[in-house]
Amino acid sequence: MERDELLLAMKDRMPEKRYIHTIGVTETAITLAERFGSDPRKAETAAILHDSCKYADRDWMKSKIIDKEMDPTLLKYHHELWHAPMGAYVAKKEFNIDDQDILNAICYHTTGRKGMSDLEKIVYIADMIEPNRRYPGVEDLRAAAKDEDLNEVMIACIRHSIMFLINKNQPVFPDSFKCYNDLMLKRGQVKE
Amino acid sequence: MERDELLLAMKDRMPEKRYIHTIGVTETAITLAERFGSDPRKAETAAILHDSCKYADRDWMKSKIIDKEMDPTLLKYHHELWHAPMGAYVAKKEFNIDDQDILNAICYHTTGRKGMSDLEKIVYIADMIEPNRRYPGVEDLRAAAKDEDLNEVMIACIRHSIMFLINKNQPVFPDSFKCYNDLMLKRGQVKE
Repeated sequence: MERDELLLAMKDRMPEKRYIHTIGVTETAITLAERFGSDPRKAETAAILHDSCKYADRDWMKSKIIDKEMDPTLLKYHHELWHAPMGAYVAKKEFNIDDQDILNAICYHTTGRKGMSDLEKIVYIADMIEPNRRYPGVEDLRAAAKDEDLNEVMIACIRHSIMFLINKNQPVFPDSFKCYNDLMLKRGQVKE
Repeated sequence: MERDELLLAMKDRMPEKRYIHTIGVTETAITLAERFGSDPRKAETAAILHDSCKYADRDWMKSKIIDKEMDPTLLKYHHELWHAPMGAYVAKKEFNIDDQDILNAICYHTTGRKGMSDLEKIVYIADMIEPNRRYPGVEDLRAAAKDEDLNEVMIACIRHSIMFLINKNQPVFPDSFKCYNDLMLKRGQVKE
């Protein structure tokens, strides 16, 4: 499917506001991909499809997570997280996306994970900083995203997500913690 | 060994300031143990011995962590963490402590872990709030420690530790993240 067909399919699955967000993530992801030497077409596809399950039925998602043997830890954490791996499932099943990097970028766009690819980081970051986002700290993240090191941008974003959840007295999905430590250890902050 | 003998042994292993901290942790741990229905004698022993390796040789600790097959993840993180499991090793080896709960309270006093016992929580908390501690936020933790739910006090302390490290751009030992999520999930903050 081409861009316009995918967008049309998304428009049907979400309220106007979320669709506008999807367009914002798509444009931002394309720009980031061009800046960081990643494939803009893959970024576009992943971004368009990233929230396809944002309004999917909770029981349906739960049953698919179990049936398809996705990470069972998901069910112990907030259902808000489920739409990401389910989005990857739908991208493959309904939209015939076979590129594993695109599927991973959709799958981990909410939690991040250890060992993210550039494309995964780009979609994660685009989701947080696209121009329609409004939350305390988003301007700092947009400024941080001007850094020329993609890992530094990702660190700024995952730190913000973790701190936000801890400040809200919420648990943090283990993949997010692993993502943070992975990036910090690679950055070489550990002095021996 | 009795309290005074153990204290004398500690005095020999650390500067005056750290020894005063040790006394502070010991008194605080005893008080917390009495309040929360834990064994004050065990709390006393664990607290006296918790920092026995704070000034131990780094290479020696590293070799023991390897030889004794302690968690190899330790070596990827800051050496500041090593004194805790090494303290448990020394407590057993040199001070003939066989009580596993006491050994665990020493071992996890810096990182916490998933599934901490009451004694482990008490020593962790006492280490953070004893009266000689001076750092931004310590008064909030002392106030939080008046809560009648030991888990709530532990949550306040582990949150503070994690936020402190993230604010300092440091990785966070995985056990601390697991400790946080364990307590948050048990608290029932996850809504489905």
